[in-house]
Amino acid sequence: MKVDRRKFIAAGSAALSGAALAQAARAAPAPRRLRDQRRIATEEAFTTPEQAAALIALAGSNWRSLDLGLWADRTVEGAVGGHLALEGERVRIMDENGVAMQVLSLTSPGVQMFNADLGTEIAINANDRLFETIQRYPGRFAGLAAFAPQDPARATKEMERAISKLGLNGFISNSHTNGEYMDDPKYWPILEAAEALDRPIYIHPRSPSDAMIDAYGHYGMELAVWGYQAEVGLHAMRLILGGIFDRFPNLKIVIGHMGKNIPFHLWRTDNKHRSERSPLKRKPSEYFVDNFVITTSGVRDHMPLDYSVKKLGADNVLWAVDFPYEDTRLAVEAMDSAPFSQEVINKIYYENAERIFKIKNL
Amino acid sequence: MKVDRRKFIAAGSAALSGAALAQAARAAPAPRRLRDQRRIATEEAFTTPEQAAALIALAGSNWRSLDLGLWADRTVEGAVGGHLALEGERVRIMDENGVAMQVLSLTSPGVQMFNADLGTEIAINANDRLFETIQRYPGRFAGLAAFAPQDPARATKEMERAISKLGLNGFISNSHTNGEYMDDPKYWPILEAAEALDRPIYIHPRSPSDAMIDAYGHYGMELAVWGYQAEVGLHAMRLILGGIFDRFPNLKIVIGHMGKNIPFHLWRTDNKHRSERSPLKRKPSEYFVDNFVITTSGVRDHMPLDYSVKKLGADNVLWAVDFPYEDTRLAVEAMDSAPFSQEVINKIYYENAERIFKIKNL
Repeated sequence: MKVDRRKFIAAGSAALSGAALAQAARAAPAPRRLRDQRRIATEEAFTTPEQAAALIALAGSNWRSLDLGLWADRTVEGAVGGHLALEGERVRIMDENGVAMQVLSLTSPGVQMFNADLGTEIAINANDRLFETIQRYPGRFAGLAAFAPQDPARATKEMERAISKLGLNGFISNSHTNGEYMDDPKYWPILEAAEALDRPIYIHPRSPSDAMIDAYGHYGMELAVWGYQAEVGLHAMRLILGGIFDRFPNLKIVIGHMGKNIPFHLWRTDNKHRSERSPLKRKPSEYFVDNFVITTSGVRDHMPLDYSVKKLGADNVLWAVDFPYEDTRLAVEAMDSAPFSQEVINKIYYENAERIFKIKNL
Repeated sequence: MKVDRRKFIAAGSAALSGAALAQAARAAPAPRRLRDQRRIATEEAFTTPEQAAALIALAGSNWRSLDLGLWADRTVEGAVGGHLALEGERVRIMDENGVAMQVLSLTSPGVQMFNADLGTEIAINANDRLFETIQRYPGRFAGLAAFAPQDPARATKEMERAISKLGLNGFISNSHTNGEYMDDPKYWPILEAAEALDRPIYIHPRSPSDAMIDAYGHYGMELAVWGYQAEVGLHAMRLILGGIFDRFPNLKIVIGHMGKNIPFHLWRTDNKHRSERSPLKRKPSEYFVDNFVITTSGVRDHMPLDYSVKKLGADNVLWAVDFPYEDTRLAVEAMDSAPFSQEVINKIYYENAERIFKIKNL
């Protein structure tokens, strides 16, 4: 049994005593369903040398983009040599924590800060690398294909290749592209392709766009502390209120971090949506329930989890860790101890993921 | 017993039959605690001829501000003659629905779109009118003072007058002022004055600022359907993460609409706030619990209400209607039927309001 290193350190000098060591060990039990529970983690990040190099190059520029702070003071070797590596220690950490499978995706902001040529090239390269890793570890990985929305025609071509040739399981997009959102008709071919290929698009966060630097660019709030939910929540609402799901009724969108607060606001969105003046066929909440699923990435609080299952239904919530940005063991412990029946636990841990991402249980 | 006009109209031609009329009447029972429950509504709007005229004048300009849509195609007579009038049918509607008291505030966007001179003038005038109305109906109204953040020196002078001379109960501010937020040091005198006067500031929504027009200015989402929560949530987070409550530890902020999704995100904000690099003395959630209270304005869904009471404590949730933008009867029915003990109902309905706004029960 391993001692929780953070609790150990937090205990300070007291941790030197045998009693404190024993207590720390007791505080970190093996997850109770470790062996017999199937777990698929659905928002798990990797980088490639090509993506890392291109982002680190941008971080050395004068572009004030809120996304680049995370890439400053980094090296390609450090980025690719750490836990963002496609392989590395990933499988060991999965094994230690009873994670059967990770659904992998190129880390944020993906390829959306590059021009269309470079973005397309890095996306294709990342998808090829992803395919190779999936082949090398049968049953342990699924993958979401990157694409460059900057060039919708080449994006849809790559989306087609990613499903038909590489057998990937869906798509990843990191919210806005140059401050634009996918309700803009120029991006409709991408939504149409996802619907036709019958695979979901995971709208992952990136920081708010350049127009919002003055608003969000303070105190680190452009990141997960607040900005990520603002950014993806805005994107999801634009898709819903813009009538995207009347146009593409079978399109499925995945959003993480317990649904970006939308479950909490859903009644009010319905209530204040002016149905008499709206072109929408249905209430906003109906699209959210039918065309979206949410994941638990980065949220280990049972209160919003329980709320979301009640509000959206157990079929609409998927487990995720957000590796390597979040701790796998803590995410397993939080879900293992969630106050649900085994039936609901199974849906959240793997059944919903198998259905949404068309994952075969080998 | 009155027929609910909206249900009546919605029923269309069927409503002409006696059976449909009887059904509509049955659907609108008197609230069960109508007579014996004290109710204080805490986010209740009014306008003045001066504010309405000035906003309608702006609505005729080329300013693309997202706030002005609501003031287009209106007349001063219409605005002041309707339910936004300080008096008018207000007391009758309160009586019919068992509302003992409204805490009144100048409607959004207040005076924050005007220059400092005009804004200050309209605020002073509105506060005088508010005072007169409160005097005319003893025990039926409390009031939040308007002020123009554009001129912090004159704002604090008016805040002082509003409490010491007019006996008002707090302050109202409509989120950003020219895209700036109150964590900006230029606004600290306002926060300092509120703390010294021991009265809360209600941060009411307005639409996102001009920099966010491209992001939020679609499908009506600049309003309550989504933009209001984004705007006030951002403002509240800036105050918390900017260390405002270390500087002004007794400052109290009120936010409506069930806390702008912050209760749902609070665990993640704590988790992703980089405490090791932060200048804050406490966790973000501790400031939210100690320095904020939330109101139920515009939210009649028991799920987020129940969640908020559990997350923040029953002392931190206040009832509000958001009159005249929301229906008083429906807001009473929603709170009367909330799944709480009478002790919790009393806190939400009036005890918390009396404490926060220093309202005397005449």
